[in-house]
Amino acid sequence: MPNDLKGYLDYASTTPLDTEIRQTYEGLLKAYFANSDSLYKDGRQIETMQEESRQQILKLLGLPKHQVIFTSGASEANNLALKGTAFLHQIKPGRILVSAIEHSSVLNSAKQLAEVFGFEVVYLPVDEYGIVKLEALKKNLTADTILVSIQYVNNETGTLEPIREILSLLREYPGVLLHCDCVQALGKIDLSEVKDADLISLSAHKIYGLKGSGVLLKKKHLPLVPLISAGQQEEGLRGGTSNALVNIVFAKTLRLALEKQAEHFEYVTSLNQKLRKGLKDEVIFLSPDNASPYILSIANLKLSSEVWMNALEKAGFLVSAKSTCSSRKTSDSHVLVAMGIKPKLRQNVIRVSLSHLVEPADIDRFIAVNKEILAHYGL
Amino acid sequence: MPNDLKGYLDYASTTPLDTEIRQTYEGLLKAYFANSDSLYKDGRQIETMQEESRQQILKLLGLPKHQVIFTSGASEANNLALKGTAFLHQIKPGRILVSAIEHSSVLNSAKQLAEVFGFEVVYLPVDEYGIVKLEALKKNLTADTILVSIQYVNNETGTLEPIREILSLLREYPGVLLHCDCVQALGKIDLSEVKDADLISLSAHKIYGLKGSGVLLKKKHLPLVPLISAGQQEEGLRGGTSNALVNIVFAKTLRLALEKQAEHFEYVTSLNQKLRKGLKDEVIFLSPDNASPYILSIANLKLSSEVWMNALEKAGFLVSAKSTCSSRKTSDSHVLVAMGIKPKLRQNVIRVSLSHLVEPADIDRFIAVNKEILAHYGL
Repeated sequence: MPNDLKGYLDYASTTPLDTEIRQTYEGLLKAYFANSDSLYKDGRQIETMQEESRQQILKLLGLPKHQVIFTSGASEANNLALKGTAFLHQIKPGRILVSAIEHSSVLNSAKQLAEVFGFEVVYLPVDEYGIVKLEALKKNLTADTILVSIQYVNNETGTLEPIREILSLLREYPGVLLHCDCVQALGKIDLSEVKDADLISLSAHKIYGLKGSGVLLKKKHLPLVPLISAGQQEEGLRGGTSNALVNIVFAKTLRLALEKQAEHFEYVTSLNQKLRKGLKDEVIFLSPDNASPYILSIANLKLSSEVWMNALEKAGFLVSAKSTCSSRKTSDSHVLVAMGIKPKLRQNVIRVSLSHLVEPADIDRFIAVNKEILAHYGL
Repeated sequence: MPNDLKGYLDYASTTPLDTEIRQTYEGLLKAYFANSDSLYKDGRQIETMQEESRQQILKLLGLPKHQVIFTSGASEANNLALKGTAFLHQIKPGRILVSAIEHSSVLNSAKQLAEVFGFEVVYLPVDEYGIVKLEALKKNLTADTILVSIQYVNNETGTLEPIREILSLLREYPGVLLHCDCVQALGKIDLSEVKDADLISLSAHKIYGLKGSGVLLKKKHLPLVPLISAGQQEEGLRGGTSNALVNIVFAKTLRLALEKQAEHFEYVTSLNQKLRKGLKDEVIFLSPDNASPYILSIANLKLSSEVWMNALEKAGFLVSAKSTCSSRKTSDSHVLVAMGIKPKLRQNVIRVSLSHLVEPADIDRFIAVNKEILAHYGL
């Protein structure tokens, strides 16, 4: 890990690369280079290791009915899940339901499917906590609905979506697939609740792994139209020379994350409680009480996100205003809009995101610094 | 570089990672991890380096009118070029022309555009040397043609396509874009002939760089429909958390390849001549005389590709039968079919691909070993 993580509170954006994972990867980079599709021994050896990684991922997650499609990241996995499913219906575009608070890679895939390809997209409303309204889901499940995409943990607020109930509801609609973006859940929240989802997206760089590394888990029998058409790789569903060494490292990244998931969860829960307790007099919590403890979205009544963030950065704390993928757009957070947060408050929000690498003393320092900053602005 | 490259003659499939590039990348991996879209200093620093890489790539290639879109590889770049352009015309699908000998990522993109999205795809025939027939191109340029995709150097035979003539011909059709897959040309053949192409695809792992790293060069003003919709990355044309450190290393990979391109070309030309001279009594050359010296496709009258390859592997030489991306399909090589090579001969072909890392003694040894193998089978 990098030496200086003190003050880094943006783990939901990305995580430092674990030293053990980095060293394993570097060892592979030094030892292997053949194309994993080559028919000679050097290629087959790498292909075997890649297959072992694939099987280990399914085993670690307890998903024997799924298959692993390696991608360049979770955004590609989300795009492949939505577009790859939708394009099967291109002749007669159907309806797609997505929650209004999905990651930009899901929302913009849906938007493209509507605007360019003629699909009907319905954005499911959420309540004040960011929880998708099940009546709205039920009401919108028409005969031509092909896909529902709802994330497990929201990336701005940590809100947990009721995937178990959604799966139960969808059991009456066998023609409708469920895609679940599990990027902010992986390595943090147990995934057993989502194991019946047809499509599941994962990322490595949110769990101390490499960037450019993602997985789409797909139930084995399901067809998909590839986004990247090319050779025989990934059973023809995702072409291009395999980034095999990166794919091999995914299994180890996952194993390390899951091994200590429960322990880390408990620890981060205590950090989150400490944080909430220390901040409660100055800020408004937008994350619900039962959100993932890894994410805390907070607002104040006066200071804009940008000024707040900059002041915190000067004091050595790195946080985000909203999802990093939309960080440079000046527009509102679509998540907070959907939650019905008032416009004035939405401008004054930051996201603090935690890790087992954060120490209680960091939290104490953050609370003190934040109090000072807000006091300086008369809050 | 790995110690044991002796006998590796499959450089067109992939190349070993250059030690200097590996060390630079490892240094970056150790030092940086922030999300390049983060607004704080750590993120902006990485973003600045990524922008410098982008500008350096354009400068090194002498392409001031283009912009760099970083992708997960050349297959993604090829898909983005074809589909990203085609999808702009989804309301009224037009005609797309591709040569019959393109890489699978181009051919299968075209196939999908025809089968799933209703585009009319014309596969342009080639002559016996694999050179696209310009009369066929001209004849097929109808008013609704939107895109032509022709590679610079064929990956199975090394055939150079007449991009200069094609660009000259297309000047009369300003509505038709030219995409040029330059994967097998980059770092080997000067790209000045293709610099007016609207879209150019490049790969890092064919020039001693990292896998999972590609670039689509696009003329600045051209719109594209993204394949991976997500955030603001790559000007909204390719979303997902940037694989910034990999993208940063692309510029160095390119610089190292271009610095010695002329010297390596001359050297590899001499290796190719040595190889042709030594093999001429036993094999039939399918690569034309004026092909890229980096690729030599050879056939024999009796021994199947698989048996030939296996015998060579036993003797320590690694070659391909056809493009690695299609290596596991038992079907014919579409390139050799298009060139009109007789079915019996097409089954008995291997591709030898060279590098500045190959030594003359390796070539001598290969010639001797190959002579023995073919003699053993009565050739």
